[in-house]
Amino acid sequence: MKAIQLYYPPEWAHCYGCGYLNPMGLHLKTYWDKERRESRTAFTPSPHHTAIPGFVYGGLLASLVDCHSTATAAAAKADADGLDLETHPLRFVTASLKVDYLKPTPLGPELVLVGRAKEVKGRKVVVETELYANGEVTVRGEAVLVQITEGFGQGDTVPTRR
Amino acid sequence: MKAIQLYYPPEWAHCYGCGYLNPMGLHLKTYWDKERRESRTAFTPSPHHTAIPGFVYGGLLASLVDCHSTATAAAAKADADGLDLETHPLRFVTASLKVDYLKPTPLGPELVLVGRAKEVKGRKVVVETELYANGEVTVRGEAVLVQITEGFGQGDTVPTRR
Repeated sequence: MKAIQLYYPPEWAHCYGCGYLNPMGLHLKTYWDKERRESRTAFTPSPHHTAIPGFVYGGLLASLVDCHSTATAAAAKADADGLDLETHPLRFVTASLKVDYLKPTPLGPELVLVGRAKEVKGRKVVVETELYANGEVTVRGEAVLVQITEGFGQGDTVPTRR
Repeated sequence: MKAIQLYYPPEWAHCYGCGYLNPMGLHLKTYWDKERRESRTAFTPSPHHTAIPGFVYGGLLASLVDCHSTATAAAAKADADGLDLETHPLRFVTASLKVDYLKPTPLGPELVLVGRAKEVKGRKVVVETELYANGEVTVRGEAVLVQITEGFGQGDTVPTRR
């Protein structure tokens, strides 16, 4: 199965969290389960991704939720519109990100994130994510994503919060 | 003036975002203006902290808001309780983080974050943050922080969401 991020056009594939063209990045890869309509990724933090010793840095956890959500939005939108990402690559950016740290996330084990689109409406998708460590949910995320179009950041296509 | 993070006890100073003992970290330093009751930090992202080329990665922005908020909480709590951080070091962790990306944040200029405590109540502090690029607010954050005590993560002192 091909990761959703690998469908991103090269000009939008430099993201520190998930871009395949960022040599210093985290290279998060999200997979879409078409039947269950949910996304999944796994990531093992490095020892330096510390918060309080023994636990994962919250900024990294927010980053994982962020990139996993943008990818989930692309897959969910493609699904909703009956598009194939291979021929219709979609790219979303984050308008709003909410992360609840339910308990400290242990540093060491692989983390698994599962995402679902709660809403798909025009260029906007709302994604809910659960992050698991040792099979237990330690973080919950909710993100509002906006689909970008050519010329992003150069004028009226800049997404604003809605 | 001494940065708030430099008051953290060494056992709680390994945070990737702001710990002085993390050799790989971002070393964010937050300063407290006692008169204005607001916190300030500045950070210049690296070229690899890209989202869409030309703009800063949202996960990094969330990380900056996160660490700036935990430090702001320590200073605001010390202020509210009339404590000196030198003799009474306080350390907060994040229970909940909300980041609104009002517009894309340009990659290049130094970013400035200004934080204020909206609420200080027992071990809980709510912090609002504005992030400026070229003098313009591009990101707004709100975080709920919880003060930790000795033995964090080892039992009943684990903060849970409230």
